[in-house]
Amino acid sequence: MPERLSLWNDTPTRQAILNFVAAITTPGGSDFIPPAERIATFDNDGTLWLEKPLYIQLQHGLHAIARMAAEKPELRDRQPFKAVYEKDMAWLGKVAADFARGDPSGVFTIVSGLTEVFAGMTLEAFEADVLDFLNNAQDARFKKPYKLLTYQPMVELIRTLQGNGFQVYITTGGGRDFVRAVCEEIYNIPRSMTIGSSVTFQYGEDAQGVAQVLRTQELEQPIDDGPGKPVHIHRAIGRRPIVAAGNSNGDIHMLKYAAGHTGLTLSLLVRHDDPEREYAYDDGAEKALQLAPKEGWIVVSMKNDWKTVFPSSPA
Amino acid sequence: MPERLSLWNDTPTRQAILNFVAAITTPGGSDFIPPAERIATFDNDGTLWLEKPLYIQLQHGLHAIARMAAEKPELRDRQPFKAVYEKDMAWLGKVAADFARGDPSGVFTIVSGLTEVFAGMTLEAFEADVLDFLNNAQDARFKKPYKLLTYQPMVELIRTLQGNGFQVYITTGGGRDFVRAVCEEIYNIPRSMTIGSSVTFQYGEDAQGVAQVLRTQELEQPIDDGPGKPVHIHRAIGRRPIVAAGNSNGDIHMLKYAAGHTGLTLSLLVRHDDPEREYAYDDGAEKALQLAPKEGWIVVSMKNDWKTVFPSSPA
Repeated sequence: MPERLSLWNDTPTRQAILNFVAAITTPGGSDFIPPAERIATFDNDGTLWLEKPLYIQLQHGLHAIARMAAEKPELRDRQPFKAVYEKDMAWLGKVAADFARGDPSGVFTIVSGLTEVFAGMTLEAFEADVLDFLNNAQDARFKKPYKLLTYQPMVELIRTLQGNGFQVYITTGGGRDFVRAVCEEIYNIPRSMTIGSSVTFQYGEDAQGVAQVLRTQELEQPIDDGPGKPVHIHRAIGRRPIVAAGNSNGDIHMLKYAAGHTGLTLSLLVRHDDPEREYAYDDGAEKALQLAPKEGWIVVSMKNDWKTVFPSSPA
Repeated sequence: MPERLSLWNDTPTRQAILNFVAAITTPGGSDFIPPAERIATFDNDGTLWLEKPLYIQLQHGLHAIARMAAEKPELRDRQPFKAVYEKDMAWLGKVAADFARGDPSGVFTIVSGLTEVFAGMTLEAFEADVLDFLNNAQDARFKKPYKLLTYQPMVELIRTLQGNGFQVYITTGGGRDFVRAVCEEIYNIPRSMTIGSSVTFQYGEDAQGVAQVLRTQELEQPIDDGPGKPVHIHRAIGRRPIVAAGNSNGDIHMLKYAAGHTGLTLSLLVRHDDPEREYAYDDGAEKALQLAPKEGWIVVSMKNDWKTVFPSSPA
C-alpha cells in the first residue's frame, strides 16, 4: 500500500479501513474484487472540506450576490439581494438557523439568487470566478483561503484508495462545477469524476460562432442529495460503489447503496466531534448516526481518529 | 504510437489523423496538449457500429415488445405491441421510412413501448437481457450477432488515441445503459465513460431492504443528440473535447463544440458510402456533410479509407 494512513491515529477505525483494503485487493483471497469494480464515492461538504458556519459554495454565492447588488440598485428591494446588500445579519443568521433545524427555504432563496447571478455565463467565466474566490477569500475563524480547509486524513484516504486501484469519485450535494474548479488541485480527482448537483445547461453559439454550453437558472432534478445520490452515481459511473463516505442524513441512501454491493463493502460516516480543531455538531446527521451501528457503517471520529485536520499553511 | 492505424488505407484521411496525434503529443511542440485535456468523444450508432436497417437498440426493443405482447394479450390492441405481435411489416416499414425522412413519431412510439417494457426493472436484470440479445440475436443480412457488427478501423482509432494519453468517451444518442452492457468488451471503454440518452431513474429498496436504482418510463431531457450532446459532454466530462467523431446531423453540435477548443482539434464525420461491405446512405447526414468542408471536419469514407469494416468471425 503506497500510504499507510499516516494522518490517522491507530484506532479500530484506521485498522478496519486497512483490513478492508487488504482483503479486497489480495489476489486469490475470498474477498478479492477486480479493479474495474473498485469504485469509491465521497461526499464533499463536511466529508472532505469544511461546511460551517455555512457551505463554502454559499459563501461564494453571497460574495457574488453582494457584487451584483452593488452594481444593480433595482435588485436591492428583494431577497437575497436586499439582506446581502444591507449586511442584514439577522436575516442571514435566521437562514442558517432554519437550515440547521431542517427548513431549507432561506437557503433556497440564496441559491435562487446565485443561479440568477450566474445564468448565461460561460463555463470558463464561472470557473475563473470560483477559482478567484477559493484562492483568495478567507474563512473568518481559521484565517485561511477556503481551498486550504480540506480534511487531510480524508485526502490521504483518497490517495490510498487510488493507489490500490480504486476509481474515486466525489458526489456532492452542492454544485458540481464549483467543486470541479479545484478538485484536481486539492483532491487529485479529475473533474470527470466529480458528480454533483447543477443547474441545467443549454447549447449556444457566441458572437464569433463558437459553440458554447451556457448555465441556465433552472436546477437539474434530482439534486445529488438523499435518494438522488444513487441516481447520480448510476448515471455517471454505471456501477455500484464498494466504498462510500459521507457525514450527514443526505448521505444515507448512498451509504446504503454501497452496502448493497455483493461482497465486502466499506461505508464511512464522518462525525464532527472536534470543537477544538474544527466543530462539534450532529445537526443534520442524527438519523445517519442512529442508523450506523445497525447498518454496519463505521463512524469516523474527527477528534479520536485523525492526527490532524487541515493542511499546514504553505511556507 | 502503439498502433499505426493498420486497418486504414494510406489515404489523406489516415495521414491527417496521424499528423494530428503526432502534433498534439510532441512535448515542446507548438501544438502540444497535456494529457488531462486529451478528451475524445465518439458517437455510437453509425459511427462505431451498424445502424441499418434499424438501430440495434430498436431491434432489441422489438424483441422485448414481442415477448411482452405474447405474455399479455391486453396489450395487443395498441401500438407498438399490436404491429410487433402481428408481425405487421407494413407498419414497421413505415416507421423506418418516416424516420429516414425526418419524422421520428413512429420511432418514438416504439421507444415508448420499450420504456414501458423495462420500467421498474433493476439494472442487473436489464443488463442481462441486453447482453443475451447482443450475444445471440443475429443481423439478417450479415448473419452475425450484433455485438460483432462494430467498425474495426474505428475501434483501432479508439485504441490508438488511448495509447496516446486520450480519455475516449462514447456519447450515444441511443440508450446509455444499452451500450454500457458491452462497451468494455467491444470498445475497451469503461462504462463510466459511456454517456448517452436514458430514462430517468429512481431510488428504491427491494423486499430484502437492499438499495436499488430502478428504471422509470420517463425519458431524461435533453436526449444526448443534437444540441443535447455538448450539454451531456459537459455534465459527464467537464472539459471540451479536442477530438470528436460522428456520422449524422445529430452530431453537428458535438463536432462544433470540439472544434471550438483553442488549439488543434480533430473532427471526423464517417460517411456510409460502401454498399458492398456495409451500406450507402446520406439520409440524416445531409446537413453535416454540407457543413464539413466549411467547418474543417474530415469526412471518413468507409469505402476508400477503411481496409476492412467488421471483425472477422471468431474461430
